[in-house]
Amino acid sequence: MFENIRNRFEETGPLTDSEFDYIFRHFTTRKYKKHQFILQEGADVDNEYFLVKGLVRSYCILPNGKERILQFAWENCWITQYSAYFFNAQAGLFIDCIEDVELLCLSRESRERIIDEFPVIERYFRKRSRIGIAWCENRILSLLNYDTKKGYDEFMNEYRVIINRIPKHFIASYLGVSREALSRIKMA
Amino acid sequence: MFENIRNRFEETGPLTDSEFDYIFRHFTTRKYKKHQFILQEGADVDNEYFLVKGLVRSYCILPNGKERILQFAWENCWITQYSAYFFNAQAGLFIDCIEDVELLCLSRESRERIIDEFPVIERYFRKRSRIGIAWCENRILSLLNYDTKKGYDEFMNEYRVIINRIPKHFIASYLGVSREALSRIKMA
Repeated sequence: MFENIRNRFEETGPLTDSEFDYIFRHFTTRKYKKHQFILQEGADVDNEYFLVKGLVRSYCILPNGKERILQFAWENCWITQYSAYFFNAQAGLFIDCIEDVELLCLSRESRERIIDEFPVIERYFRKRSRIGIAWCENRILSLLNYDTKKGYDEFMNEYRVIINRIPKHFIASYLGVSREALSRIKMA
Repeated sequence: MFENIRNRFEETGPLTDSEFDYIFRHFTTRKYKKHQFILQEGADVDNEYFLVKGLVRSYCILPNGKERILQFAWENCWITQYSAYFFNAQAGLFIDCIEDVELLCLSRESRERIIDEFPVIERYFRKRSRIGIAWCENRILSLLNYDTKKGYDEFMNEYRVIINRIPKHFIASYLGVSREALSRIKMA
């Protein structure tokens, strides 16, 4: 549990054991069972989550009652609703568990404190934000420029390491197609 | 031209005149006429752009030949295709000028250098990335959860300071609706 997050932070520079211990005390650990909610629409978004174990999804519910999946996160991924986390707003989406989950929570205040105190942590979060922005930009482009076969191929590539852990109807909900349409794409 | 970017950087801490002069030497200035391209699909994305004057849009061309607008940027905004800029890839979209434009270009290498040398610049870019991620996340949610009237209201709110400078057919292209549908929404 400690090692994964330490390895991540040390991507941008070394930390001594005592520095890391101090940083790690800013996290809290939580466990969830499959199907439990980590975040629900309307709740305050006070935490960012680092996945130690398990698989989760974020999604919104459309006016017609259907779900659309925004993204999946698994071991060593971070997830929250950043627009609400950074700017102290309420959630506009849900995050729930596809498997049993263990995670580390980092509150806004704790995040600011460790960033202020450790330049290596500020660098880590700046660099990680590049991945987040690039991911979001690609997701926007694929939603604008909608080609289901291309979307499916991109999905299979992006999520290849966990593809067998994602139920088929969740893949359809990510792509915005029916299960039948998904089957046709796979056979094409 | 100098003042706008200096004010931005000093949001995260003061810079002396000589520090700012040194930082500013990492930028190059460019001018474009209305309709000129700043970036074209397939080109290397070596720069991030800070708008000093004028209005631009980024957009992609769909397989059916239609344009879909990703975003608009105007005075004091930054724009590029970040997924390509950060990771040294080729552009998957276009950026062109809706008005005559003056801008500052910051190359990847120059950006890394001033971030390495000035913690206040690293902080500035980390904090700005929060705005970028939040914007992207909201754009994804509005594309997933598509309600044209809500999308129009959000658009009018987000772009209210420049709404009179954006041609109506570009608003339709941002929202993904026809001009006729846009007129109906406005009258609703």
